[in-house]
This record gives sequence, C-alpha cells and structure tokens, in this order.
Amino acid sequence: MIKVAVDASGGDLGNAPVLAGVRDALKADPDLFVSLYCDDASHTEALKSSSFPSYLRSRLSLHLCGESVAMDDKPIQALRNKASSSMAKAIQAVAQKDAQAVLSSGNTAALVGFGLQLLGTIPGVTRPAICTALPSSKGRTWFLDMGANLEPTLEQMLANARMGAGQCRLFDNIQSPRVGVLSVGSEAIKGTQIQQDLAAELAKEPGVNFVGFAEGADLFSGAFDLVVCDGLTGNVALKTAEGVAHFLTDELRTVLSRHWVARISYLLLRGSLKKFRRRMDPARYNGAALLGLDGLVVKSHGASDSGAFENALLLTADMARLDALNFLKGELQGASAGVS
Amino acid sequence: MIKVAVDASGGDLGNAPVLAGVRDALKADPDLFVSLYCDDASHTEALKSSSFPSYLRSRLSLHLCGESVAMDDKPIQALRNKASSSMAKAIQAVAQKDAQAVLSSGNTAALVGFGLQLLGTIPGVTRPAICTALPSSKGRTWFLDMGANLEPTLEQMLANARMGAGQCRLFDNIQSPRVGVLSVGSEAIKGTQIQQDLAAELAKEPGVNFVGFAEGADLFSGAFDLVVCDGLTGNVALKTAEGVAHFLTDELRTVLSRHWVARISYLLLRGSLKKFRRRMDPARYNGAALLGLDGLVVKSHGASDSGAFENALLLTADMARLDALNFLKGELQGASAGVS
Repeated sequence: MIKVAVDASGGDLGNAPVLAGVRDALKADPDLFVSLYCDDASHTEALKSSSFPSYLRSRLSLHLCGESVAMDDKPIQALRNKASSSMAKAIQAVAQKDAQAVLSSGNTAALVGFGLQLLGTIPGVTRPAICTALPSSKGRTWFLDMGANLEPTLEQMLANARMGAGQCRLFDNIQSPRVGVLSVGSEAIKGTQIQQDLAAELAKEPGVNFVGFAEGADLFSGAFDLVVCDGLTGNVALKTAEGVAHFLTDELRTVLSRHWVARISYLLLRGSLKKFRRRMDPARYNGAALLGLDGLVVKSHGASDSGAFENALLLTADMARLDALNFLKGELQGASAGVS
Repeated sequence: MIKVAVDASGGDLGNAPVLAGVRDALKADPDLFVSLYCDDASHTEALKSSSFPSYLRSRLSLHLCGESVAMDDKPIQALRNKASSSMAKAIQAVAQKDAQAVLSSGNTAALVGFGLQLLGTIPGVTRPAICTALPSSKGRTWFLDMGANLEPTLEQMLANARMGAGQCRLFDNIQSPRVGVLSVGSEAIKGTQIQQDLAAELAKEPGVNFVGFAEGADLFSGAFDLVVCDGLTGNVALKTAEGVAHFLTDELRTVLSRHWVARISYLLLRGSLKKFRRRMDPARYNGAALLGLDGLVVKSHGASDSGAFENALLLTADMARLDALNFLKGELQGASAGVS
C-alpha cells in the first residue's frame, strides 16, 4: 500500500484534469491510495458528477481545506497566510506520516517554501532542488535544479549533483553516471567561476564519471546521465525546450494542412503523429521531484492535462515504493564520508 | 557596393560550406563583394576545384593568412599568438575600412576578444552582446545576449536592451518594442536581484514597451519583440532550443519510417517536411550580430551548412547596407540623453 497526498487545487487548468488523472492512476496502480486535499466543496460536486467508478472510491479519501494557494501568490505571503491551504495540508500529511509522498501542480515557489517549513531538509542539504528526467535519443538525462534555488552556492550545487547521481542509481541502475555541468559552448571559456569550481569538485568526486561541461543541446543528446546547473539557468532551459516543442508541433500541423496531398497524408499519419506529440512534449515527461526535502514532494506541471497528472502521480507512488527518501539520505551520508 | 570580410577558416565543418555559401550569396546579392581570409593555400585549391562561376570571381578577393584560430583555442592565447590568423585579419579589414563588416563561423570567445582588441566598443557600451532574431508563430523575437558576457553588470544589460530595441526599430520597424527580461516562471518570485533591477530600469525607459519577465517558452511565443538576459542563460537557452529541434526532427523521421502507411505518406510529404525542417532549425535562422563593437561583426553558427552560411552572409550585407552601426550609435546616444 502506497498513500500519496494530492493537492487538488493547484495548477492552471482547474481540478478536472487532477481528478481524471487521480482516477486513471488508481486504475493503473492497485497498490495506490490517494488523500485528496481540496479547497472547497466544489470538488465534492466534481467528484460526484465525474465518472469515478465506485470500486476506486475505497482508495480515495477527501479532505476539504479552507483555501488554496494561487499561482500568483507571493510565497512569503502564502507561508504566512495560507497554513490551512490544500497545499500546506497535503504537505502536512507527509510530515505527520499520514501519507508517504505529496504531489501538487500548484505554485512552485510556495511548494518549496511550505516544504522547507513543514518538512525541513535532509542532512547535507540546505536548499532543495527540482529534478526531472528528460527524454533523449538514447534513454534519458536527469536534470537539476529547475528553479528551486536561483543562485546556489558551490556546496549546494555539489549536494545537488550527489542527489542527481542518486536518482541515476535508484531509477536507472547506473552506478557511475556520466555527469556534466551545464554552461556555455564546450570550446573556449568554460562558464562562470562557480561552474569551474563545481567542475573541479566533481572531477574528484568518487562514484561519478565527470565528463565536463555540457551545452544546452546535451540535455537531449544522450551524452550525459546527469546534468547539473543553477535554478535560473535550469528553469529557462526547461521552459525554452517546452516552448520549442509547442512551436514546432504547431508549425508541423500548419505545414501538414496546407496542401491536399499533405492533408490526406496527415489523416493517414494521425496515429503516428499523436505518438510523436506525446514523446516530444516535455510536459508529458511530467513529475519533478523536490530533492533534498525531508519528505517526498513531487511537482506536476502547472498546465498538466489528465494524462500528464496521472504520469506524475504514478511516478510519485514509485518514489514512495522505492523509498527514494532514505536512499537519498544514504547517498549523501556516503558522499560526505567519502570526501572527508 | 557592399564589401564583407569573411573568415573562411573558422567553423566545425571545414571550408566547403563557407565557399559554397559565399558563392550562393554572391549570386543572390549583385551588390556584394567578398574578401575571403583563408589560412593556407588549400583554400585556393578548393576554390579552383569548386563550381565557382568565373563571373562571380571578380567580386571575390582572396587573402592568405599564416594560420587560423581553432575552435578549442583559449581566447587569451589566440589574442596573444594569432594576430595573423584569418579571423584577426578579417576583423582588421573592418578596422582599416577595407571592408564594411566581417563574418566568421569560428571560435566565439576569440571573435569577441579580437573584436574588442581591434575595433573597441561604441560610446555607452563596455562589452559587446551576441544578438539574433528567433522565429515565432507571429513573426520574430530579438534575443540577446547569447554568450558574449556571461555575468553582465546592470549597466551592461541596460545597454544591451537599448541595442536590442535598436534592432527592432531598424530591421522590423517596431518603434516601441515589447521588451521582456528572461527569468523564471512569470508567477511568484521574479528572478535574481539584477533581473529585478533591470526590470525597474526598463519600466522607466522611454521608447520601449516593457512587458515584464519572460519565460523560456516566450522566446518562441511571439509575446515579445525583444528578450534580454545574461550571456550564460542566453547561450544555454539557445543551445537547448537547437537540441530540442534536432531531437524532434530525428524522432519525427523515426516515427514516419516505422509503418508502411507512414512511409508512403512520408514520401508524399517530403517537400512539406523539408520546408518544416528549414523553418524549425534555429541554425537556419543563422547570423548573430556582436552588437556594441565599433564595427559590424557577425557570427555564423559553427556547424553552418552552405545555406546557413549564405543566410548569415546576406544578413551581414544587409546590416552594412542599412548602416546598422551608425544607427546603433545614434540609439545609444539618444537613450543616454533621454535618461539624463
């Protein structure tokens, strides 16, 4: 039995994709139990009217909260004024061991803030990092930080690299991951001072294969198992990738609808193109872990549809099943022991 | 008559795409004259054996140089030891008014270094910025800095914004461009201190329509005419965009070749897809200006094929034709006058 607390009130698209995603994840994973934290009775209504089969209802509990965190709430104000929000209550469930992990598609900065306030960090970590795996032609590349810590210190970046290496070991069974520091062109000058210092540290780090500096294109080239960077660069890179993917699918649709031969071909190809769309959209590769918090917290994309939310929920359940938190604690203890 | 100095020895793909690109640009633009700076006699051979029609040869002059800057040369060493390289000699031609602009697909850091050493900067600018226009669904978005200055000061970023606004006015006739500062998610915390300070300055800046913070996806959304950021973030964003574009075209090809219906459709669609590929690949949108130098310097993508190099050369000729350098000087004078 795996119990995940779900903040049902975050996200840009309302609660419908969250509810549909929860339903489909409960169908897909018979071990999964969900505690749903909602901001008002509207969700009870939504739940009643939706096609939520009664046999799944026994694995779903509903918790009504007074309020929710808005996407444009400033995190400091959310922390001060919204302690009874669905987001805070869902994280609280993990802190009180009522759930093994929490999933939210809400305001990222508030999620980081409540995570720090209610769960704290694990030994060796002072700030969490947002981590996900990106698709590549040869598998996938773990990537962090995607925006939790815009200007990390060297120590924080090193802790992030260790946590990312842990993800490679736990999820992909890669014992000595190929690691890169995201920076400018691989030729000539290699990034900022902190990036050069981090590279020097990682070259000495046991248990990783430090390859060198990575460029933006390497996030999808398959040349690295893990790429590390500050939260500002990481957030911009990820959102640029999403932007390009959307721009290109739109362009492709336009090209394919312009000519009658193309239009007929498009009908024939629709199935293949649908698969392509799913594979190419980083939002489908959904579910980013807030590593370093003393509790499992996963962020779903703010614009998640039901399929993307289901993916993130199944990932969250897997992290709980693999006991990713204690694995990570062990990794960081081992790393600091290895260094001293 | 427009005369462009071309560094023929830079780039990852050797001189063949450079020579073919020069030939096609000379065909396309009857006003264009090219001074080709090459590192050894091999280029003379290449030129002889290539299909270079003799009627174009009168607009081409060849300058043999002792050496070239390698892609992995450290810029400091290049500056010290390679003053007679094809790159340095081509820039020197602009400094001595033998050419109106220079184009190179070589080592970016060395190009910035030689540009600073041989041309200096225009008043109001202390470091150049690399600027290009990215395609969007609604036109294009000017973007800088793509990697000339990894950690700019507030003053440097403000000068970059003014130069970028100048590009919008000169090339797209947009008098009051919609300007954004590239940062993390538009909700919640808005980037680093320097980004917030820059936003405050731009909100007061006359002649621009400051919209606010932009996310990575906005580089291709058409919501901004100009997006400004530091060189580290900009370089990573651009190379990420390229990586996604390549990854996706490869995926598309795989999807389209997997099934016989798809394979037949692919043959029917080949023309449309070729257009799509051209449109989607940021390398096709080739030619990035090193704004702020006291001379027109354009960087072509290191992996430019002949078509991409031709594009960059035609753009370089256009910049010279429009007298972009003096326009930019006027813009910066006007801006600092407006502020004081």
